[in-house]
Amino acid sequence: MKQLFRIVLFSLLVLPALSQPLSQKLAANRDRRFILEALKRQTDDWNTGRVDRFMTSYWNSDSLTFVSKMGITYGYQATLENYKKRYPDRASMGTLKFDILELDLLTPTLAYVIGRFQLTRPEIGNAEGHFTLVWRKIKNRWVIVSDHTS
Amino acid sequence: MKQLFRIVLFSLLVLPALSQPLSQKLAANRDRRFILEALKRQTDDWNTGRVDRFMTSYWNSDSLTFVSKMGITYGYQATLENYKKRYPDRASMGTLKFDILELDLLTPTLAYVIGRFQLTRPEIGNAEGHFTLVWRKIKNRWVIVSDHTS
Repeated sequence: MKQLFRIVLFSLLVLPALSQPLSQKLAANRDRRFILEALKRQTDDWNTGRVDRFMTSYWNSDSLTFVSKMGITYGYQATLENYKKRYPDRASMGTLKFDILELDLLTPTLAYVIGRFQLTRPEIGNAEGHFTLVWRKIKNRWVIVSDHTS
Repeated sequence: MKQLFRIVLFSLLVLPALSQPLSQKLAANRDRRFILEALKRQTDDWNTGRVDRFMTSYWNSDSLTFVSKMGITYGYQATLENYKKRYPDRASMGTLKFDILELDLLTPTLAYVIGRFQLTRPEIGNAEGHFTLVWRKIKNRWVIVSDHTS
């Protein structure tokens, strides 16, 4: 009986205490990996001229915010239209490369990314700069809810 | 007895359920007000030439990040030195004005601010742009942990 009590106690108290931080750590690693892969997929989509697919990493909401030298843009549709207006063809899109400088998982459903972008455009001139992104896990999917690119 | 049971039930279940969202709402309002006041204080300090006091809204840590057109800067001390280098005197500091466009309390200890700054400098020319700030409540005090200004 005492043995059984110990097993029950171990299962109810000790095991969860041991396994929870590990499961949290694994979940955090999975989230970080997902975000890095999403960023990699973004450059792949950009470099094959698929702006619509590039945009799927963004939150499809009117509350999405995008800050650039043009100022602040609200909403998914307006952000997509800005991209299409600013990068109308493959020559202006060039080849995009991201260097991820920071990836902080602030909470299990919030992350912050700082990166550097380089746009190689032999015909019309290169461009480069930095971006900061706030990611949120919404309906079990990580999306960019805020982007500041300069 | 039945009456007492009802009172106990009300105190334990109904009251906390009613009061918790309200107390959370009050706390959120207090946090938002604190952040807005800190931003107001920042412009006051800037406009009286006190960069050191302006900086006290930032996280005093090597992990502070500041992104500008100069790239990414890590740490409180380096950020302070950049400010002093870039704005060495009152003429270059000018008069600073913030317009707060977004203030999102992401969690009870995390907030996100988007704003526009205007620097009026009659002698050497005006400047303007946008900033996005991540605020964290660390040791019961809200501080900017990440700033992207462009």
